[in-house]
Amino acid sequence: MTDLGFVETQRVVLGTEDDPLVLASGRSLTHVEVAYETYGELNAARDNAIFVCHALTGDAHAAGHHGDPARRGWWDNLIGPGKPLDTDRFFVISPNLLGGCQGTTGPLSTDPATGRAYGLDFPLIAMSDFVALHRRLLAHLGVERLLAAVGGSLGGMQVLQWAIEAPEQVGAAVVVASSSRLTAQNIAFSAVAREAIMRDPGFLEGRYAESGEPGPSTGLRIARMMAHITYLSEEAMSEKFGRRLQADAPGQPRPDAPATGMGLGVDFQVESYLAHQGQTFLDRFDALSYLYLTRVMDYFDPFADPDAAARVAAGGTRVLVVSFDTDWRFDTRHSLRILHTLEHARVPVTFREIRSPWGHDSFLLTPPGYHDTIAAFLDRAAEVEGGAA
Amino acid sequence: MTDLGFVETQRVVLGTEDDPLVLASGRSLTHVEVAYETYGELNAARDNAIFVCHALTGDAHAAGHHGDPARRGWWDNLIGPGKPLDTDRFFVISPNLLGGCQGTTGPLSTDPATGRAYGLDFPLIAMSDFVALHRRLLAHLGVERLLAAVGGSLGGMQVLQWAIEAPEQVGAAVVVASSSRLTAQNIAFSAVAREAIMRDPGFLEGRYAESGEPGPSTGLRIARMMAHITYLSEEAMSEKFGRRLQADAPGQPRPDAPATGMGLGVDFQVESYLAHQGQTFLDRFDALSYLYLTRVMDYFDPFADPDAAARVAAGGTRVLVVSFDTDWRFDTRHSLRILHTLEHARVPVTFREIRSPWGHDSFLLTPPGYHDTIAAFLDRAAEVEGGAA
Repeated sequence: MTDLGFVETQRVVLGTEDDPLVLASGRSLTHVEVAYETYGELNAARDNAIFVCHALTGDAHAAGHHGDPARRGWWDNLIGPGKPLDTDRFFVISPNLLGGCQGTTGPLSTDPATGRAYGLDFPLIAMSDFVALHRRLLAHLGVERLLAAVGGSLGGMQVLQWAIEAPEQVGAAVVVASSSRLTAQNIAFSAVAREAIMRDPGFLEGRYAESGEPGPSTGLRIARMMAHITYLSEEAMSEKFGRRLQADAPGQPRPDAPATGMGLGVDFQVESYLAHQGQTFLDRFDALSYLYLTRVMDYFDPFADPDAAARVAAGGTRVLVVSFDTDWRFDTRHSLRILHTLEHARVPVTFREIRSPWGHDSFLLTPPGYHDTIAAFLDRAAEVEGGAA
Repeated sequence: MTDLGFVETQRVVLGTEDDPLVLASGRSLTHVEVAYETYGELNAARDNAIFVCHALTGDAHAAGHHGDPARRGWWDNLIGPGKPLDTDRFFVISPNLLGGCQGTTGPLSTDPATGRAYGLDFPLIAMSDFVALHRRLLAHLGVERLLAAVGGSLGGMQVLQWAIEAPEQVGAAVVVASSSRLTAQNIAFSAVAREAIMRDPGFLEGRYAESGEPGPSTGLRIARMMAHITYLSEEAMSEKFGRRLQADAPGQPRPDAPATGMGLGVDFQVESYLAHQGQTFLDRFDALSYLYLTRVMDYFDPFADPDAAARVAAGGTRVLVVSFDTDWRFDTRHSLRILHTLEHARVPVTFREIRSPWGHDSFLLTPPGYHDTIAAFLDRAAEVEGGAA
């Protein structure tokens, strides 16, 4: 097994004034760019393509590196020669999604109608809008039908939406650590994050970028810190940090006596870790994208349409649903709801709950059995579909 | 069973320049006022007193009303004639705690050394400082020994600390939905809350009150909204709100199409609920108190002292530990740790896990069996101690 080497992010215009991207809301985008990467080669039959959908804060850079081999894409452990998404056999496509901030058109992009950034004038989007743009990218690459679509968390939602909308285009669907319907608690966490961002005085009604101001950095930091708590299992957090104090603190104080180093700031290692997560997030993510993308998740509820699962069955998409036993952001019950709804409609669906200590983040990691499950499912899909380089 | 009528909050000075309150940190407070309420009558033997310790955002007003019979104290369902803390038999004492913002000296109080509010110059406090001030109040009221101390959440921590420090003073200890040691996840949630408060531009380094500014209202609101998620079980939140939209929204949109009313603000009922919780909290709580009191909880770890449990055993305090099965802020494992540590030291300890759908907030509510458990334990304590009016 080797790694992919240097890869370059590509860009393509997939929506124009003559051919706008019409959204589920009825509004249109007349200039849509997509940033994407591909790994491996499309075969002559054009039937070995696997589409990767990223999660909330992901981007097109799923595998390989951009110059520094130590900084690799977010799913580099899954994608590459000899890996489950085997680039010796499969042609892997990974775009940044609509509304994002890593190269694909989003709220910080220029609104052709005004010549300035959209800000809050960017239209509200839906899961089907992500998929509509993915399908344009697929057409651009000359692929009619996917061997598979694969995604974790919000990525899995896109995969599920795609399988419902156009199952004839998706041979196999891999839906990891995902949900077909957020709970009130899921929505609540996102609501607090949005509140933190929009009430930050730096938000400036969404016009921070053109003002040259740093933007709602406190709000975005808080949003990320809070979200990060939900991405880790309590077990993983205890294992990783416990109640240990920062190295520069004078050690555990007497139980009843504050030590000299005790303060209201960053005393415990877990606080330092979260503060670091919040800080580094500011360099790579935009607050408006955070608002728009979390809202898409809140509203996602594809099985509210009672015919949705039957469409997947009619289209013949085979589905793999994977959950992780310590994931409490989208716990196994979310995956079981997808499983049972699809099963009820006689969709060929396989389910695995993987034991993993790392909570929701497990979908980015390698708990035992996880990658083997995906590899076996994709191998079987390739056999059935006949797709491989 | 009847309710307590009108009660008045009383105030007393329990720390002076001549008799300062010396804190665990070594610092002293030279003017300490305490706001407290009492319900029922102290008997002639002075052996029927029950001390109530409040939780993070509680206050002295635990029972009865202050003029509007519809607005009753936070534990009015537990305290009153014929209730588990039966004011026909017991003398119940309920103070606001040190560092609070409801009448007892805290960060917004005037620092005698400077003549202005302490702000961040208020000393860091520890659980034992709460107890030290409680004990001064007890002495002021002419009570040497308590029939019982009772508290939920942070209140339970104070009760546990008291039983460890002065078990001879606490006949029985009731520790509800509490913890002897926060997990990394518990600390993480508090850390995000503090970050939201301290990074709010309105925080003004803690000098907002004297500036006449509204203070870090966004940060405090975010802290409360986030904390509130952890106080409710996922089940209760789903039951109460599900995915229902606000009444003024145009109804559930098509799964893939944003409805006209969809926006980035408050669409779902759960969002409205949290926003309301955040807003009303601003009227009754102070951001500095939030910082100081959460920090006390983070550092609390009384069993780090290996002799702590043995001291409880030697003092003869009987302990009741209660948890709720859907509480995920302090889940049953927290209570079991207290149980096992005390049991190991041969403390007479009783444990009940109460089935309740309402999560951590259950300690303020009346899930079946909860009040009966407390009533039975207190009745038994009164028999053993001989304390009753």
